[in-house]
Amino acid sequence: MWLGLHSPDDAQMAAVATVFDLHELAVEDAVVAHQRPKVEAYGDTLFVVLRTLAYVDHASMAETAEVVSTGEIMIFLGADYVITVRHGEQTELATMRHRMEEVPSALAVGPSVVLHAVADRVVDAYLAVVDEMDTDLAEIETTVFTGPTVDIDPVYLLKREVIEFRRASTPLAAALARLTAPNPWLPDEVRTYLRDVSDHLTTVNDRVMDYDNLLSSMLDAATAKVGIQQNTDMRMITAWAAMAVAPTMIAGIYGMNFENMPELHWRYGYFVVLGLMATICFTLWRTFRKHGWL
Amino acid sequence: MWLGLHSPDDAQMAAVATVFDLHELAVEDAVVAHQRPKVEAYGDTLFVVLRTLAYVDHASMAETAEVVSTGEIMIFLGADYVITVRHGEQTELATMRHRMEEVPSALAVGPSVVLHAVADRVVDAYLAVVDEMDTDLAEIETTVFTGPTVDIDPVYLLKREVIEFRRASTPLAAALARLTAPNPWLPDEVRTYLRDVSDHLTTVNDRVMDYDNLLSSMLDAATAKVGIQQNTDMRMITAWAAMAVAPTMIAGIYGMNFENMPELHWRYGYFVVLGLMATICFTLWRTFRKHGWL
Amino acid sequence: MWLGLHSPDDAQMAAVATVFDLHELAVEDAVVAHQRPKVEAYGDTLFVVLRTLAYVDHASMAETAEVVSTGEIMIFLGADYVITVRHGEQTELATMRHRMEEVPSALAVGPSVVLHAVADRVVDAYLAVVDEMDTDLAEIETTVFTGPTVDIDPVYLLKREVIEFRRASTPLAAALARLTAPNPWLPDEVRTYLRDVSDHLTTVNDRVMDYDNLLSSMLDAATAKVGIQQNTDMRMITAWAAMAVAPTMIAGIYGMNFENMPELHWRYGYFVVLGLMATICFTLWRTFRKHGWL
Amino acid sequence: MWLGLHSPDDAQMAAVATVFDLHELAVEDAVVAHQRPKVEAYGDTLFVVLRTLAYVDHASMAETAEVVSTGEIMIFLGADYVITVRHGEQTELATMRHRMEEVPSALAVGPSVVLHAVADRVVDAYLAVVDEMDTDLAEIETTVFTGPTVDIDPVYLLKREVIEFRRASTPLAAALARLTAPNPWLPDEVRTYLRDVSDHLTTVNDRVMDYDNLLSSMLDAATAKVGIQQNTDMRMITAWAAMAVAPTMIAGIYGMNFENMPELHWRYGYFVVLGLMATICFTLWRTFRKHGWL
Amino acid sequence: MWLGLHSPDDAQMAAVATVFDLHELAVEDAVVAHQRPKVEAYGDTLFVVLRTLAYVDHASMAETAEVVSTGEIMIFLGADYVITVRHGEQTELATMRHRMEEVPSALAVGPSVVLHAVADRVVDAYLAVVDEMDTDLAEIETTVFTGPTVDIDPVYLLKREVIEFRRASTPLAAALARLTAPNPWLPDEVRTYLRDVSDHLTTVNDRVMDYDNLLSSMLDAATAKVGIQQNTDMRMITAWAAMAVAPTMIAGIYGMNFENMPELHWRYGYFVVLGLMATICFTLWRTFRKHGWL
Repeated sequence: MWLGLHSPDDAQMAAVATVFDLHELAVEDAVVAHQRPKVEAYGDTLFVVLRTLAYVDHASMAETAEVVSTGEIMIFLGADYVITVRHGEQTELATMRHRMEEVPSALAVGPSVVLHAVADRVVDAYLAVVDEMDTDLAEIETTVFTGPTVDIDPVYLLKREVIEFRRASTPLAAALARLTAPNPWLPDEVRTYLRDVSDHLTTVNDRVMDYDNLLSSMLDAATAKVGIQQNTDMRMITAWAAMAVAPTMIAGIYGMNFENMPELHWRYGYFVVLGLMATICFTLWRTFRKHGWL
Repeated sequence: MWLGLHSPDDAQMAAVATVFDLHELAVEDAVVAHQRPKVEAYGDTLFVVLRTLAYVDHASMAETAEVVSTGEIMIFLGADYVITVRHGEQTELATMRHRMEEVPSALAVGPSVVLHAVADRVVDAYLAVVDEMDTDLAEIETTVFTGPTVDIDPVYLLKREVIEFRRASTPLAAALARLTAPNPWLPDEVRTYLRDVSDHLTTVNDRVMDYDNLLSSMLDAATAKVGIQQNTDMRMITAWAAMAVAPTMIAGIYGMNFENMPELHWRYGYFVVLGLMATICFTLWRTFRKHGWL
Repeated sequence: MWLGLHSPDDAQMAAVATVFDLHELAVEDAVVAHQRPKVEAYGDTLFVVLRTLAYVDHASMAETAEVVSTGEIMIFLGADYVITVRHGEQTELATMRHRMEEVPSALAVGPSVVLHAVADRVVDAYLAVVDEMDTDLAEIETTVFTGPTVDIDPVYLLKREVIEFRRASTPLAAALARLTAPNPWLPDEVRTYLRDVSDHLTTVNDRVMDYDNLLSSMLDAATAKVGIQQNTDMRMITAWAAMAVAPTMIAGIYGMNFENMPELHWRYGYFVVLGLMATICFTLWRTFRKHGWL
Repeated sequence: MWLGLHSPDDAQMAAVATVFDLHELAVEDAVVAHQRPKVEAYGDTLFVVLRTLAYVDHASMAETAEVVSTGEIMIFLGADYVITVRHGEQTELATMRHRMEEVPSALAVGPSVVLHAVADRVVDAYLAVVDEMDTDLAEIETTVFTGPTVDIDPVYLLKREVIEFRRASTPLAAALARLTAPNPWLPDEVRTYLRDVSDHLTTVNDRVMDYDNLLSSMLDAATAKVGIQQNTDMRMITAWAAMAVAPTMIAGIYGMNFENMPELHWRYGYFVVLGLMATICFTLWRTFRKHGWL
Repeated sequence: MWLGLHSPDDAQMAAVATVFDLHELAVEDAVVAHQRPKVEAYGDTLFVVLRTLAYVDHASMAETAEVVSTGEIMIFLGADYVITVRHGEQTELATMRHRMEEVPSALAVGPSVVLHAVADRVVDAYLAVVDEMDTDLAEIETTVFTGPTVDIDPVYLLKREVIEFRRASTPLAAALARLTAPNPWLPDEVRTYLRDVSDHLTTVNDRVMDYDNLLSSMLDAATAKVGIQQNTDMRMITAWAAMAVAPTMIAGIYGMNFENMPELHWRYGYFVVLGLMATICFTLWRTFRKHGWL
């Protein structure tokens, strides 16, 4: 028997708990959202908490403050029943249920098949989110390393979402390890299939961990890049400034009011000085060019 | 029997120790505050140290140097008695005691019920502090990423408080693990309930660890942001400076005192030069604008 | 019997699976690429996933965005057959197969010999990639520490490739550990040889981990170097600016139009002022030189 | 029997070794200072190495290069004797010995009581050093976050001392764990007391680890702060520079020598221009003020 | 029997392998240099790989790119023979051999004594290198914290050598742990002596790990220091610039050509303006001085 609930309130949950004789602590956990992934055994009943993740679409990394949204699915697994409690809109289960009910043989093994199906679907959703993050990461890399200016906010934003992601997926590894180890609640066949889910989860966790490292390196690289950019700018600015300062200084000298300044009376003094200024500017330009400041 | 003490002095504690035959080392620990969370067995008596945490209200992150205050609760658990020793004003126990004494059945299981009740209350208080920190973190994120200037002090301040928090909550995980494992002091039922407390503590520890990571990333991101801000400022400053330097240079040239400077005698020389200056400034303005320096 | 497949499609794989009675989950993994290295036992069949790596040639670190390309080799090892499934062009197996088939005694031990041969070849390819990375790293070190300007992009790029590399090689260590431990699928002799492969892998993992650390340090060192470079530049710029500003200021003073400025009427006033300017510039030049600003 | 030695030379130690039949390797370790904390069993004899720490007084963090000094105490514990070898002046033992000898009952348990007494005293000295470091850390925090300029040297200096500290205290934890576990050399009572010492050591290690983290964060925060300070300075400098450059540019224009410059002949032209300059400066001042640059 | 080889070629090694019946894989490892430290048992023969380290003398940290050079020593330990194979010139063994052969009793225990002697000598050489690195580190600290300019290259260089060092010494700890644990190849006495070597190695590893941390902190501290230096420079530069800009602006004003500028006709106008300039400069100088910019 498979009972599916969506964001039940206290009263609904209490009714269900009475019928199936569920443990008070598990029921409490099932009503309050924001639980940590875990596996807990209360007598014959297995209580499993999974966190669901969904990618929130956004036009660009800078436009939204939320890349990953989270929900929960709790599963009560008894000898002859399974109860799924879902919080949030992530990882909808109805489609899956219909598909499973069309293949009666699938459910013949017992309610633990549902546990595998749900876990599989949750981890597949993780994988989908990770793929989207991959795209985001590539977009950020392009922005940071080839864009005209470095923008740090998306790096931090994705870092935060990666941490959010890991809060959901990392503890699940330990929970799945408990389920795949020999235990009295799950038949061997289901455990083999859960081991496959566990493998996929490890892949997810590896990739998310890598993103975490990459984003940290990117922050460091961006800091260095900003410094380099500033140095390049400063050199260019300085080069142009030097080309303006030199003529100004010379003009200042010939703007002095001394009575006896022979150059002022030369016929072509002015033109010679203009030429001198142009020569100096050109020489400076060539020198800076040669040293890569321009 | 439940005996509750608040910041007892040596004499009081010695009297209690004599009556209940408490171990010298535990009694010493119970008087001196600033202990580390731990579980220690002295013969039949279980000695448990918990650190209590409370959030210190403050108008803004910059205004106070203390976000989290700490205290201790020590518990002596004997076969037929429980002694709680509280240091500091955090996590008051009286209300809880009254509530428990109104439901006699609750205490029927034995004094270990009090141990669970106290641990539950302490960890619930952790959760409340974490929620407040969440708000602080969001406030700091807003300041760092959208404010007009980056302020680093609140980031460091919260980092320090997070470390303070972890000093209280992290060792408690190991202590609770000892209590939830099969042991001669606690009945199975109490251990099941303590496992629930332990789960909540893990959630708390995960979140605080995440804050720690986020604050580190924020420090790195802020460093990069400051560099970017400086570069942007420098470019804007330079652009305006260039627009002032060019006319100054031209004015300098026509301020020279050469006898033979034909332009000076042209009727509209002055106006042509003024126009030239304006044209140069406008061209520079447009160029800088196009390259995003203005 | 040794069956070698290259990027088989679903139909081909299904046919093979039927013949050899392979487990559904393993077959699914063998078709879909981008698996994580692992060892999985399905009844008598051992299913091993290896990731292959190849170094992508490039003229310089800055020119390409991909230094390491990856593929997969999956191995089904039964009592009397071995099936290798290869995805990607890395680590070609045909040559190795021909060589092995020329020495019939080599294959006499059984199909597990092929497992060792493939693993050995894959890890040898890792070693070759690591050697190439060594060269890249040395090149980057030279660029960062002795080049005229610091370029950050290759550091980040190699860091990313190192992370990619570790995603392939790190999980293989755990997989090999399972194969070298006593197990029912592999004879002792093969296990001894696999231990040698495992040793080589550890060397590879150590070296790649070291690159990771070095690249992180290099990012930090580069950030500091950029700051130092900027400071040096700023000092040099300032020194030259001072040498231009001082004469300009003096020229400005003697460009004032006061009626009573005695110096203006001195015969050699102009020359004295020119000399003063030169002296000031030379003194500044010597002072800056002495303090290492020039 | 309790034999106390202070910085013995080879000959003295050799004599003692002969009398008590001590193991060659332990004797060698006892003569050479700079050992690592450890517990080693040679037959019936237990050989324990402890590192002693003392805080070196200094007027301010910047004035001294050494905040923590280190020494060693080695203990040979036999069935009916204990030999303590002390190197360095830290953690003097004589006072403790006199106190213990006045209470004969204390020593009745056997020589292992001395082991506990020495370990307790050494760890208490750690705690005293940690308290002093706490004060230093608070002083440095004040300097970095509220002082007029950021000074990095004390942060690095304390970081180095923290690392020095951890070299002494961290390995001791493993050594004490060996002594508090059931073992043939120590009676249960002494082990209970050593567990208390071990608890204190854990507190010390936690706190020192926290200092380590805080100092790292402080370095990062200081880097960001320096950048912010520089940006603030640059903005202020720029604002004042703009207020000087604008009048200079205008003055330059009216210093040109064109024959036909109508404004020059206006009666109040000069005063109008002076007023214009003042207005521009005031407008700039107000604008910069409004944007927080001044 | 003790056979010592130095950088043998394939043929020599093959001959030896035939005589002593050595395992193919060990022989292969013994010929190819650049192995990882390890202990491997092939039947009765123990095969041990050690990496040797030597400090490369250099006048200053900046002058050389190589601080530590590495070699290998491989040991084949049979029941009645020991074969040492040495690659590289580090850690010469001949002297040690002569000394051992002069004390026949030393070798009476069996060939495993040689294993201890070699390991002891290798680790002693590590300790010598670490002592030299200590000096280098102190030299770098002095350069970074008290020198006129911060130089980053030696910090990175030593960091790289520390990583090189750890590649040799860290895996040896695991190898030695295998030898000091009870095993069929080594008598108890030799294991006790190897435990002493293992202790020394732990000291070495602790210290090198500390250097690693210190160098990382130094990179961070240097980055912050460079920023501080730049800020200090910028403030000083600005102060002097302000003192040049103010007179220039005033001179510009009195260089204007307005017909009606009363000050120009005052008798002492010029001297009053000169005095004004001097007063402004002095006031600025005093103000900057007071605020610590000069």
